Amino acid sequence: MMIRPARREDDDAIWRIIEPVIRAGETYALPRDMTRADALAYWTGPDRETFVAEQNGGIAGTYYLRANQQGGGAHVANCGYVTAEDATGKGIARRMCEHSLDRARTRGFRAMQFNLVIESNERAVRLWQSLGFEIAGRLPGAFEHPRLGAVDALVMYRAL
Amino acid sequence: MMIRPARREDDDAIWRIIEPVIRAGETYALPRDMTRADALAYWTGPDRETFVAEQNGGIAGTYYLRANQQGGGAHVANCGYVTAEDATGKGIARRMCEHSLDRARTRGFRAMQFNLVIESNERAVRLWQSLGFEIAGRLPGAFEHPRLGAVDALVMYRAL
Repeated sequence: MMIRPARREDDDAIWRIIEPVIRAGETYALPRDMTRADALAYWTGPDRETFVAEQNGGIAGTYYLRANQQGGGAHVANCGYVTAEDATGKGIARRMCEHSLDRARTRGFRAMQFNLVIESNERAVRLWQSLGFEIAGRLPGAFEHPRLGAVDALVMYRAL
Repeated sequence: MMIRPARREDDDAIWRIIEPVIRAGETYALPRDMTRADALAYWTGPDRETFVAEQNGGIAGTYYLRANQQGGGAHVANCGYVTAEDATGKGIARRMCEHSLDRARTRGFRAMQFNLVIESNERAVRLWQSLGFEIAGRLPGAFEHPRLGAVDALVMYRAL
């Protein structure tokens, strides 16, 4: 697997990966009816670096890295990761997160924060914990899950 | 004191209030060198409602109210408040926060979240606690304070 910066030609592959996650609305706080254009503008916006994970000639995942805040908070990074539906369970999210931690250190970030990890997304919570993130906060009912109703969201954080 | 929606004619008064806070860089994660145009675009952006607190014919404070997230997180509100330097200590922030809680309820929000309350801003922490907010999370060293260096930031949260 090779992780490299996304290019404009990757838009179709990125959309193919992120659309089902946006439509499901179970893990990202994005409008479920978000258009392709809005979603790509978000995922590949000028305020962030976007990467893709290439495997066997295809794109198996994508992530973005950005500053979580400006000013006095600009040394804390934030990322979002999505693995292609047909490639889950193969360690791709882990590889992308490891890549993002390295990239964030290289860019001088001193911590990484996930603002809204949905607690029902247990695999993600465990994965981030195994990569050194701690649960820094719990937001009661902060996420309206399409199937489960109001669920807690976690703020996860680690120094770099 | 009357709290009302901000109008374009309030821009000068809003800038007079928020500029010192932005330049100080001690409580908001905004670039300390932010321009007037960028600051007003942020504070009065189309994604939020902006209010001003009128007192004795002048503007003594301003706040914004917005959704903290989209999609499954859109029922959680977020606000920022600034009191004019020459009007602090008179309960204006408290009045603005009470107003924002009412307004958020009216709009159907079910919770309010402050993402980055700087721990050294002790007066604010106490004020939000007295208004029903709990410390939902602690972010170690997440804010680079111009005088104090890296300080913790708190995530504060309350149901509505």
